[in-house]
Amino acid sequence: MASASETVENYKAISAAEFFYKYKEIAGFANPARALYQTVRELVENALDATDAHGILPNIKITIEKADQVHEYYKITVEDNGIGIPPHIVPKAFGRVLFSSKYVLRQTRGMFGLGVKVAVLYGQMTTGRPVEIITSQPGLRRIYYYKLRIDINKNQPIILERGSWRKNRDWHGSIVSLTIEGDWSRSKSRVKDYIKRTAVVTPYANIVFMTPEGEIYYYKRVIDKLPSPPKRVKPHPRGVDLELLKRIRETGKYTTLYNLLTKSFQSIGDVTAKKLISQAGLDPNIDPMKISDKDLLRLVNIMKKYNKYRPPKAQALSPLGPDVIKAGLTRIYEPEFVEATTRKPSAYQGHPFIVEAGIAYGGKVPRSPPDKPNLLRYANKIPLLYDEGSDVITAVIKEDINWDNYLVHLPAPIVVLVHICSTKVPFKGVGKESIADVSDIRREIKLAISEVARKLRNYLSKKIKEEEKKKKIVNLAKYIPEVARALSIIIGEDGLGYNNILDKLAEIAAARTGIPKNEVEKVIKNVEIGT
Amino acid sequence: MASASETVENYKAISAAEFFYKYKEIAGFANPARALYQTVRELVENALDATDAHGILPNIKITIEKADQVHEYYKITVEDNGIGIPPHIVPKAFGRVLFSSKYVLRQTRGMFGLGVKVAVLYGQMTTGRPVEIITSQPGLRRIYYYKLRIDINKNQPIILERGSWRKNRDWHGSIVSLTIEGDWSRSKSRVKDYIKRTAVVTPYANIVFMTPEGEIYYYKRVIDKLPSPPKRVKPHPRGVDLELLKRIRETGKYTTLYNLLTKSFQSIGDVTAKKLISQAGLDPNIDPMKISDKDLLRLVNIMKKYNKYRPPKAQALSPLGPDVIKAGLTRIYEPEFVEATTRKPSAYQGHPFIVEAGIAYGGKVPRSPPDKPNLLRYANKIPLLYDEGSDVITAVIKEDINWDNYLVHLPAPIVVLVHICSTKVPFKGVGKESIADVSDIRREIKLAISEVARKLRNYLSKKIKEEEKKKKIVNLAKYIPEVARALSIIIGEDGLGYNNILDKLAEIAAARTGIPKNEVEKVIKNVEIGT
Repeated sequence: MASASETVENYKAISAAEFFYKYKEIAGFANPARALYQTVRELVENALDATDAHGILPNIKITIEKADQVHEYYKITVEDNGIGIPPHIVPKAFGRVLFSSKYVLRQTRGMFGLGVKVAVLYGQMTTGRPVEIITSQPGLRRIYYYKLRIDINKNQPIILERGSWRKNRDWHGSIVSLTIEGDWSRSKSRVKDYIKRTAVVTPYANIVFMTPEGEIYYYKRVIDKLPSPPKRVKPHPRGVDLELLKRIRETGKYTTLYNLLTKSFQSIGDVTAKKLISQAGLDPNIDPMKISDKDLLRLVNIMKKYNKYRPPKAQALSPLGPDVIKAGLTRIYEPEFVEATTRKPSAYQGHPFIVEAGIAYGGKVPRSPPDKPNLLRYANKIPLLYDEGSDVITAVIKEDINWDNYLVHLPAPIVVLVHICSTKVPFKGVGKESIADVSDIRREIKLAISEVARKLRNYLSKKIKEEEKKKKIVNLAKYIPEVARALSIIIGEDGLGYNNILDKLAEIAAARTGIPKNEVEKVIKNVEIGT
Repeated sequence: MASASETVENYKAISAAEFFYKYKEIAGFANPARALYQTVRELVENALDATDAHGILPNIKITIEKADQVHEYYKITVEDNGIGIPPHIVPKAFGRVLFSSKYVLRQTRGMFGLGVKVAVLYGQMTTGRPVEIITSQPGLRRIYYYKLRIDINKNQPIILERGSWRKNRDWHGSIVSLTIEGDWSRSKSRVKDYIKRTAVVTPYANIVFMTPEGEIYYYKRVIDKLPSPPKRVKPHPRGVDLELLKRIRETGKYTTLYNLLTKSFQSIGDVTAKKLISQAGLDPNIDPMKISDKDLLRLVNIMKKYNKYRPPKAQALSPLGPDVIKAGLTRIYEPEFVEATTRKPSAYQGHPFIVEAGIAYGGKVPRSPPDKPNLLRYANKIPLLYDEGSDVITAVIKEDINWDNYLVHLPAPIVVLVHICSTKVPFKGVGKESIADVSDIRREIKLAISEVARKLRNYLSKKIKEEEKKKKIVNLAKYIPEVARALSIIIGEDGLGYNNILDKLAEIAAARTGIPKNEVEKVIKNVEIGT
């Protein structure tokens, strides 16, 4: 039996800020090297979300500077030309964990409303330095400045400084600076790789990156076309749950069940609403607040199982499109072959998603490992660098695709890009590094890659044929001058001369192989020079 | 430029309950199959934390029942004989996310104070059924009953029913029931495997598990010795950060810096405190509240870098010990060889940890895959089943150990158990499925496995020698009867008879090979019967 002292447990509540302060490694801040990488990511992703998602061609500037002589402190500054943050929102947007604009149904890079706040927490626990924000929105007359930290116990911002000044040109955007303990030497290659991979899928962005050593990387905009921005949508009824329905009715906006269903969900029109309500044995005019829990649950189960809805709306999504993918791959790899595809929208558990794939081959594409092509994974336009081994995309390119069937004999100079966009990417963790194996998604990935791989096969097969043709000509042509010489001797000076015989033979060879005569002659010329 | 409508972002704050309701897959509740597995885990781990961590030999009963005729609803009930939960705490302990007894420095299975609450959320969103709790503590006269759900917007419990009755025997413990939408057919093998692997490391527990089909699995207690319970400790100064120091001084408990350092940290005595304070150029008697941020940061950096502390205290840890590991492996595998080791405490980033390893070979141990031994991973006594590929333990047994050197030629009937216990296991996610690659931990894992593997090598090498010996005897003995017969004929009836000659030859063979005579004779007998 337990003694009294052993039975005492210390229960306590902690704030969301304290939770992520204690367990910061969950959000990707496990150590100084990883934290530096993660901070760059969070700031860059916010900068891109503030621009391309709002129809603005992004100009992004990333600077990492050593911020202390003795300690490994780094100041990370990211500047964008985005829509900025409303001044009264700034303190909470940077100083309150679980406060965000990302909690809506729309594809964004940010998802959890968490990253930059954990970076602020990491900065204040390692260097004590606050976050600094300069921001202005289009149409505003002033630029606003804030310096703040987070009160961990209360999960509230503490404003240390604030100010504003008049704009003299219509600048809008944000400049955010954070100073954290980092480990540049250990995170350098990841950070560079992250920015390069970001550049691959944002050929419409100017990206400038300055390292602590003063190196400058400049990815110049190569196309002016933006992917169409995502729009916010209502939830799809296939993804409904009891709590969602309760939360909707508690808004008090709907006086009848019919109203609630048709106005708060996508894909439920008049006919569908009536069907669902009658299957649940309910009255369309009932006040939603008066439906019993049991009836509500029956309705939920009917809504989840009904299979004649229109699929979830894809306007919440913003795929890159084949042109952007091809331009991006070309900007970095200058390949001999490049193709890309964007699949039609699909859905899992009521969440719409689109898979895109691109392949670049040859040119400056590096040689792949022997077991799989080089892989660039993306989710909602974010490059995924860590945990490749546990990602569904890796599983597909290793297990579901036989590359030899596509004439790709690994190792080969091939890079495969896969992009999954969704209002809810099934990430395995808050760190957003790998995607769970959801069968609907896996199938679409396979189809997308196969589609592009077939085009690669056509290209490679043509290339092989041409090479074979060339070989054939060379093989033939090698003997033609000799044969011509021999014949010209046999026939003697009365008959056709050497050059005429050569010409006749070239004609015969061209007719037999189907290769244009002038090509045959070119090869013959080379053989003559060679011998 | 962006138009006005495009610049509107919808910012909002959400509660911790809403966060984990929205992103439940982060806590392991990705789909009905996974949710069923995760719910069992959370309840079983709480049950074990309530017993063995408090010196009680656990009796745990797990029941999974189909809870609906039509839908895939399952009721999961876990009963323990632990220390129970104080009645006034019950509502928050089950109805408030981020309220827990696990936010202290002490090894527990639970860690984030999250799991069971997300299970409650999952239950109420899929089946609408509340959680039911029956509990009593040792010494209390009554048993308490609660039925509750979570108000997601407020992150507060809503008590639906409560009650209590007099105990007629001194029962203590908890019975917790949850009804969720599950997928038993797809989670069955994982759940069974989880319970079996739990049984491996808790040979001191009676565990009964009843499946929806009515199958009963009973793992009977085989030893009465409990690992010594973990004790709560103060933080180690190597893991200090600026926020921690600020939070400690804000408690107002300490009137001088000297007091604060010596009383709120482990491993800081009089001498160390004075050294640290003088290196930071501070006055030992200064009121901690009056130290500037800059001075405080200097002190933090000095504390982090000082390298003469005693290592972190291991009394916060509760390793299994070699006896428990061996008993556990034997209970399940009845192997021909079993060994285990518990390494000395070590530390990473100020967190103490201990690595243990066990190996079972032969008997009922199944054949391993060709690339690595069968592996049982544990962290703080929790079996880890998912994401094996991204775990540091897997990396060690695949990359750091050459099994051939230990005479283990894969595939082989070998299972390796590795247990890492720490006040802070560096899990890669809230789902607690894989451990990050921390170099200090990786080194200890390698040393632990090597230590046990060396014992296995000794055993196998002895076994091989004995087999060779046996072969030798058999080879020798095969000829002895024939030689004896031949000799007895040559010598004729006057000399020694066949049996005497046989005896002499056996004696010579025994002397030559060093094998006891009676063993040689046994083999000869077999040969005689065989021929």
